[in-house]
Amino acid sequence: MQLDDLGEFALIDRIVAHLGEAAARDIVVPSGDDAAAWTTVEGYAVATIDALVEGTHFRRDTMSMADVGWRAVAANVSDLAAMGAEPQYLLVATLLGPDVTLEDVDGLAQGIGEACAAMGVRVAGGDIVRAATTGLSIAAYGRARQTTDDIPALLRRGGARPGDRVAVSGHIGAAAAGLVLIQTGRSNHVAAAPLVRAHRRPVGRVALGRAALALGVRCAIDCSDGLLQDLGHIAQRSHVGIEVALAQVPVHPAAVELLGAQAALDLALGGGEDFELVLTGGREALMALDTEDVPVSLIGRVVAEHPGEVIAWAEDGSVYEPPRRGWDQTRDTGER
Amino acid sequence: MQLDDLGEFALIDRIVAHLGEAAARDIVVPSGDDAAAWTTVEGYAVATIDALVEGTHFRRDTMSMADVGWRAVAANVSDLAAMGAEPQYLLVATLLGPDVTLEDVDGLAQGIGEACAAMGVRVAGGDIVRAATTGLSIAAYGRARQTTDDIPALLRRGGARPGDRVAVSGHIGAAAAGLVLIQTGRSNHVAAAPLVRAHRRPVGRVALGRAALALGVRCAIDCSDGLLQDLGHIAQRSHVGIEVALAQVPVHPAAVELLGAQAALDLALGGGEDFELVLTGGREALMALDTEDVPVSLIGRVVAEHPGEVIAWAEDGSVYEPPRRGWDQTRDTGER
Repeated sequence: MQLDDLGEFALIDRIVAHLGEAAARDIVVPSGDDAAAWTTVEGYAVATIDALVEGTHFRRDTMSMADVGWRAVAANVSDLAAMGAEPQYLLVATLLGPDVTLEDVDGLAQGIGEACAAMGVRVAGGDIVRAATTGLSIAAYGRARQTTDDIPALLRRGGARPGDRVAVSGHIGAAAAGLVLIQTGRSNHVAAAPLVRAHRRPVGRVALGRAALALGVRCAIDCSDGLLQDLGHIAQRSHVGIEVALAQVPVHPAAVELLGAQAALDLALGGGEDFELVLTGGREALMALDTEDVPVSLIGRVVAEHPGEVIAWAEDGSVYEPPRRGWDQTRDTGER
Repeated sequence: MQLDDLGEFALIDRIVAHLGEAAARDIVVPSGDDAAAWTTVEGYAVATIDALVEGTHFRRDTMSMADVGWRAVAANVSDLAAMGAEPQYLLVATLLGPDVTLEDVDGLAQGIGEACAAMGVRVAGGDIVRAATTGLSIAAYGRARQTTDDIPALLRRGGARPGDRVAVSGHIGAAAAGLVLIQTGRSNHVAAAPLVRAHRRPVGRVALGRAALALGVRCAIDCSDGLLQDLGHIAQRSHVGIEVALAQVPVHPAAVELLGAQAALDLALGGGEDFELVLTGGREALMALDTEDVPVSLIGRVVAEHPGEVIAWAEDGSVYEPPRRGWDQTRDTGER
């Protein structure tokens, strides 16, 4: 069966079948009408959109289409996790390039379905179009509750206060290390598996974001542009300075083993796309978030000095100088 | 100033400035955090996503980037209008192809802003990425109210019942006629203006959808794939037959004048992208929707016979045979 033998509606039916339980069938209006509809309660809607396109965000030789589908879901869910929201529904716009096969579409749908199952969201609707390039735009929709004092319970980039500690979940730089290993033909090394998985199958930290909120934490961002740049967003939005102890940054031991300590650190600070959470708040609250499944590490503190600036200190007292700047989407047309 | 001289965040600031009042600044979390947030009430969220890409949905030589932005908004708002929902917020994912200039981005944002102002929606957030092709994916969110009997007040494709009359708003085929005139170099003809405008600046029929709901109408679709195909969606979802009187289909007088009666009719039945509403319901309710601003015309009836099938009758009793099939996104990579 070739892609071009199927009409649009047969193709959509096939995708919905591949999505399995990830297709939201029991909502007020599921896929198939002009729009999807679901019930809302009094509170807050939290919504985001992200585009993932071939050549800019993925290459077909480093990721399967299933990985692409998974990653697109993770990137969006991660944005909601970083708000402390409860993700609910996705709308998926799929661009099919000229070289896309029916198998590719099947793989994409399977990857989206697997990611939905892993991250507790469902697809409420979508659009599928032919295009000169292949890509996905996913809009994710979730909800946040009202606190008793009528303020939305959300994690904001602007919520950092001097005196806060800074923490990150998981291992930072693992996804970037995985990509380096794939690109240099070392992804089959026995130690590489968790790094390659971090690149191809990242997981949005939904439970962590919600647990942080419950413990009174009010500031987070997801680690997508590289740790230093993401911390910079917090520093700028919160009008605070941030100081990071490089020795505390949780690089992945496999990245150190395979790439060396300096490269592992450079990838942690500048690499991006780990989709771990960066949080600021009270020391006790942050330490209470640390679990065996998702470790949370204290890496620095928020200060009143040098507002908008992030300074990363080595143990010898020297300041970290990045080997290159963090990723800037509009300048960088290469693969990441 | 060149596009590549601006970083991602400066570019976003510039886009938000161009959006003007169309940028939602007073919501709980506006653009600039991990996700946008706004308040919800008890009821129903209605949401849709549509992708519009160069080569498939528009060509740069027939539409300005401002028109592209406008049309992308209209296509999404129209989907919500066809549910009878009240559109509220858009999330806009923009793909910038290699040939896109800063002027193009400015134009795109201006067109989006103008369309938002015309259709009563605002941009809550977005994403902007470099890609091998240019396009937009817009997700639109709106709300629907609960009826007193606990059923959501929505216009559904599956809501047609035998005995219903069928109506359409505006002039059908005008957008397709406008495109033909542009492609054949006749868009400067004095009579062509309303047709060219229908192609480049279509308007989602939000007020009409909500008025229809208020009058007890429960079935609608927006006219995006061509009248016969869109009626076919209603017939299939509602398990009813639909009979259309060709003489009643409101083709645009300018299309008849410039292209001839047969071509105007063919474009109405197969052309698509008018973003007018097709409604079924009681004769009196449908006639009450007719206004000078947005005419509503009765064109046929819903029957129990030939479920899933649409039959269009000429005055001489012959059945209409389309010159070609309605547009099928996955087969057609040409311009529309």
